[in-house]
Amino acid sequence: MDIEDTLLMIPGPVKVAPRVLRSMSKPMISHRSGEFGAIYSDCIGLLKQFFETQNDVVIMTGSGTVGMDAAVGSIIGRKDTIVTISNGKFGERFTEIGERYGKVLPVKFEWGTPFDLEKVEAALEQGAKAVAMVHNETSVGLTNPAKEVGKLAQKHDAIFIVDGISSIGGNEFLTDDWNIDIAITGSQKALAVPPGLAIVSVSQKAEERFEAKSASYYADLKAHLKSARKSPVQTPYTPAVPLFFALQEALHMASEEGFASRRARTARQAEAVRSAARALDIELFPQVNEHSHYSNTVTAMKMPAGVTDDKLRGGMKKQGVVVSGGQEQLKGKIFRIGTMGACSSGDILRTIQTLELVLAKEGQLRSRGAGVEAASRVLGV
Amino acid sequence: MDIEDTLLMIPGPVKVAPRVLRSMSKPMISHRSGEFGAIYSDCIGLLKQFFETQNDVVIMTGSGTVGMDAAVGSIIGRKDTIVTISNGKFGERFTEIGERYGKVLPVKFEWGTPFDLEKVEAALEQGAKAVAMVHNETSVGLTNPAKEVGKLAQKHDAIFIVDGISSIGGNEFLTDDWNIDIAITGSQKALAVPPGLAIVSVSQKAEERFEAKSASYYADLKAHLKSARKSPVQTPYTPAVPLFFALQEALHMASEEGFASRRARTARQAEAVRSAARALDIELFPQVNEHSHYSNTVTAMKMPAGVTDDKLRGGMKKQGVVVSGGQEQLKGKIFRIGTMGACSSGDILRTIQTLELVLAKEGQLRSRGAGVEAASRVLGV
Repeated sequence: MDIEDTLLMIPGPVKVAPRVLRSMSKPMISHRSGEFGAIYSDCIGLLKQFFETQNDVVIMTGSGTVGMDAAVGSIIGRKDTIVTISNGKFGERFTEIGERYGKVLPVKFEWGTPFDLEKVEAALEQGAKAVAMVHNETSVGLTNPAKEVGKLAQKHDAIFIVDGISSIGGNEFLTDDWNIDIAITGSQKALAVPPGLAIVSVSQKAEERFEAKSASYYADLKAHLKSARKSPVQTPYTPAVPLFFALQEALHMASEEGFASRRARTARQAEAVRSAARALDIELFPQVNEHSHYSNTVTAMKMPAGVTDDKLRGGMKKQGVVVSGGQEQLKGKIFRIGTMGACSSGDILRTIQTLELVLAKEGQLRSRGAGVEAASRVLGV
Repeated sequence: MDIEDTLLMIPGPVKVAPRVLRSMSKPMISHRSGEFGAIYSDCIGLLKQFFETQNDVVIMTGSGTVGMDAAVGSIIGRKDTIVTISNGKFGERFTEIGERYGKVLPVKFEWGTPFDLEKVEAALEQGAKAVAMVHNETSVGLTNPAKEVGKLAQKHDAIFIVDGISSIGGNEFLTDDWNIDIAITGSQKALAVPPGLAIVSVSQKAEERFEAKSASYYADLKAHLKSARKSPVQTPYTPAVPLFFALQEALHMASEEGFASRRARTARQAEAVRSAARALDIELFPQVNEHSHYSNTVTAMKMPAGVTDDKLRGGMKKQGVVVSGGQEQLKGKIFRIGTMGACSSGDILRTIQTLELVLAKEGQLRSRGAGVEAASRVLGV
């Protein structure tokens, strides 16, 4: 198997369009030049559309986690309390970050189960400077109710921090309408850029309530905002220049497609995966309700009976299709297919067809073709 | 002017070899795969040679600053004291980081003047958990006495942290021989990789004295070491995959040249720039002494009388050669030429020739050609 000739269907890093990959091969430029500033400015303009926000947007070099770290560390001091809501790995990461910098009131749910909004409100009633949640919990394939928590945050005057890493650009995500003070995404998700950039939007209210000194030196939103307001636009520390080239190219591709069209396409593609799963008698993993939905960027499914993670994912990889397993306590119990960014109908169909092939090989499929047929019907191809 | 067709002679990001640039155009791979682990492992093996160390080495996604942040934040808690030695912008950054996390005993010298080792020792005598310094102060073109401070650190049992960002691989840098507990470099300097990775070596002694919880969540050396010891080798958070491709390719290029040969070439190239400066009556900026030397990776020169920064650097850029100006209080007073990594003899000669052209245009050069002649003599071409 040639690792460079596989179809990457994991929920990040996702497949990157050849045009974006090529853009990274450009020679380096000075990060203090007008040319770099023009790239950064262009990206910010498009990212504001992507985030559906009028807030300031900064780009940090690092994993998506550095954006989460920056959000919490810029707002929460030793004596402050943050409510962290979790129903998966990344929600729990907010709890860990919060514990590093201040006091945490965790509102914890079983992985893959919806938030109980009453419990969230009960926590907020105890008084908190901020509340943090993950919109799209990548580890379990569940989209959490950001709009509803945003209303509670506003009611209790708490700064609202949302990890939109595997969400923004894929799911509907209305930063301003939902009252999100700090929203975070990573380059390697719906933007379909390689990993290495965290993108953070910051409301004026959040900025007014920044700690005098952020907890972390590197992940300091104040420093990033200050540099982004310079002319030419800058970063406080040397940025990953090739990833800015890639981000600009990818944002132009998304803008050409239309941000709303891309979200609609992503939703259709996830629905195609879910339809295929149903046709193949594979159970979706998360529990959903009125406010909590199956994710449109990552579909988490229970491992079919009689098939191991090794057989399923290993078998698919042998055919050149890479999907993800479960994390931590879900290892071996679920598998996950990402549908974001540059993913095509052909990619979805190849993935489902390969899944069918492996299940058939393991004697766990009654008839071949039902998954592909269901998916193609949804995709309209 | 075509920004993609310029010669970048700034002290980072530096020119990247086409072979390394192309390596970034490869499709994404999963960062939790054996394939990624093999790349990370290969890089670590070569980086240990690059650092002249047996210590563990981790690679973090971020600017060089995230490595400095990780070093200080993993060692210094609220009640600990760190001695920070500075004679330029990046030394002062250690003071800023230290103040964020604990108590600082700053030993501050004028920008561009050598350390007074007696003052360093006097500070260490007051008791400190760590001492931090910059080996090669990029802002002033001065190489500071790491070996000598290492002896003082050992004598006073302080963890020795050295920013080797614009040094390692260009200057002589003996991590183990000099008793350096935590050494840091950035991808965009002598490694000649685009910016976006910080590389950090950690001694067993440093690890034993880590704070129970590092000050910063993202820049936590403990988390990075833990993931780097997994099989396959991993990073705690999603890494900048294309930069790992580039790092691997660049390390192989450096290894093919030979790490020692590359250092010798870099030294010769900097000496060529200094010789040219002398031939053109341009004064070198830093003061040097027995232990403090002109940098072999960046040459800082005083702005010639009668020439402005705008005329000199702007004029050179018009001819396609980009050099750096002074930072902060040195803005307009000095200019800097980087000679690191993939820099060739031809690059040096083109740079000097362009400098001559601009000086002649401004009426500040008696006769053309003296700089190029001096440089070519040193380069042996």
